[in-house]
Amino acid sequence: MSGGSLAVVGLGPGPADWLLPEAEVALASATDLVGYVPYVARVPERPGLARHATDNRVEATRARHAFALALEGRRVAVVSGGDPGVFAMAAAVVEALDAEPAFRAVPLRVVPGLSAMMAAAARLGAPLGHDFCAVSLSDNLKPWSVVLRRLTAAAEGDFVLALYNPASKARPTQIGDAFAHLRGLKAGATPVAFARAVGRPDERLHLTTLAEADPALVDMATLVLVGSSETRWVEGQGGRRWMLSPRTYGKGL
Amino acid sequence: MSGGSLAVVGLGPGPADWLLPEAEVALASATDLVGYVPYVARVPERPGLARHATDNRVEATRARHAFALALEGRRVAVVSGGDPGVFAMAAAVVEALDAEPAFRAVPLRVVPGLSAMMAAAARLGAPLGHDFCAVSLSDNLKPWSVVLRRLTAAAEGDFVLALYNPASKARPTQIGDAFAHLRGLKAGATPVAFARAVGRPDERLHLTTLAEADPALVDMATLVLVGSSETRWVEGQGGRRWMLSPRTYGKGL
Repeated sequence: MSGGSLAVVGLGPGPADWLLPEAEVALASATDLVGYVPYVARVPERPGLARHATDNRVEATRARHAFALALEGRRVAVVSGGDPGVFAMAAAVVEALDAEPAFRAVPLRVVPGLSAMMAAAARLGAPLGHDFCAVSLSDNLKPWSVVLRRLTAAAEGDFVLALYNPASKARPTQIGDAFAHLRGLKAGATPVAFARAVGRPDERLHLTTLAEADPALVDMATLVLVGSSETRWVEGQGGRRWMLSPRTYGKGL
Repeated sequence: MSGGSLAVVGLGPGPADWLLPEAEVALASATDLVGYVPYVARVPERPGLARHATDNRVEATRARHAFALALEGRRVAVVSGGDPGVFAMAAAVVEALDAEPAFRAVPLRVVPGLSAMMAAAARLGAPLGHDFCAVSLSDNLKPWSVVLRRLTAAAEGDFVLALYNPASKARPTQIGDAFAHLRGLKAGATPVAFARAVGRPDERLHLTTLAEADPALVDMATLVLVGSSETRWVEGQGGRRWMLSPRTYGKGL
């Protein structure tokens, strides 16, 4: 190996003005892009840039391939949507490093990105203005019982909840099951927001309540935010509603 | 009012290559900067840019002032470190909007930023690779009993924990109290990281365990990460240790 390196790079939610300058530089200096097809496709083609786009759910194979390319002397960028550390490629890359001592020869760094949670929160006002949890609803890599246990704990702590990966074609019912579970633990009037494809042309916000939340409106591109007991709606310009989790909490305690 | 507007702008953790292009444009078009002294100081001076820098802990007053300036026709940027939605100015601004119907005339938007949590996670590898909670340890605006209740809930859910505002001169003992509380709930060997001033010249990472975690090493500029029961250290290049919360969880369940 000579000069090879591996950077795990966060592309943010999509638009160019949500890509960090550090990520832009890392992409510009890469010889090889490795990642899930739609993320690799976001990076413009240029001479000398090799593209290794793979399907979803092959993260471990992809991470090993990235290290192998770096060991051959390539400057590899593993691209991830949002922030690579949040339910994305950084963990798969560090897992690959853990499994193969030879990969320790590779200089590794993680270039952060804007996570979907922060992008959605910006559009909604301040839903994450107080303590919050992020939970992936996918049970591909953890038992569903763990998801339910964490939703219960988040409700007991009265955290605001950000639900990642709420649904997919293979898992269409879990967001409905999660809402049913949360309805047993939290007030029906709790504010809920569906933030779909934030920052992309098909962006769509849907404001509702836990009692009224319709799972049919949730897809793979949606981030679901569920308020705490103190989260509320605030009226703004032209009747626009903002979602607020106030900085103060439990004044009566 | 004519042409006035209010943008709550996230400056990220500090370095220019962690400032989103959208934030850079918003700052360049502002006529007035409003914010806590060190954040306002980060934005370069230029002709025509008025600066309204105020002390910490006057967030509500600052937010009202920003709306008042916007009502006078100014293009106001309220600047926040990190992401403005995470324990920062977005909530104070939406609270001010809630309290004063006249402020509804002002076009409002939130420009997200890189949160300290994601910056710290990038330096550490993948500590947030699985479900996590963010908790502010400050009891300025919530009772300490709520902090303890949330730490308990986070431990019951076996979430990774990101602790914001772990200490200040006025609150030197709370991080020690939080560690003591967590030691009753989680294994002493749980990986813990102190990520101080990430992205700035005085950045410093300290890797330890819950049993060994020394509160004296934690200050206001530190983000504290506490692992789940499955978080572990992984050795990388030159003996560097990475913090990994694996994507899989509870395989034995």
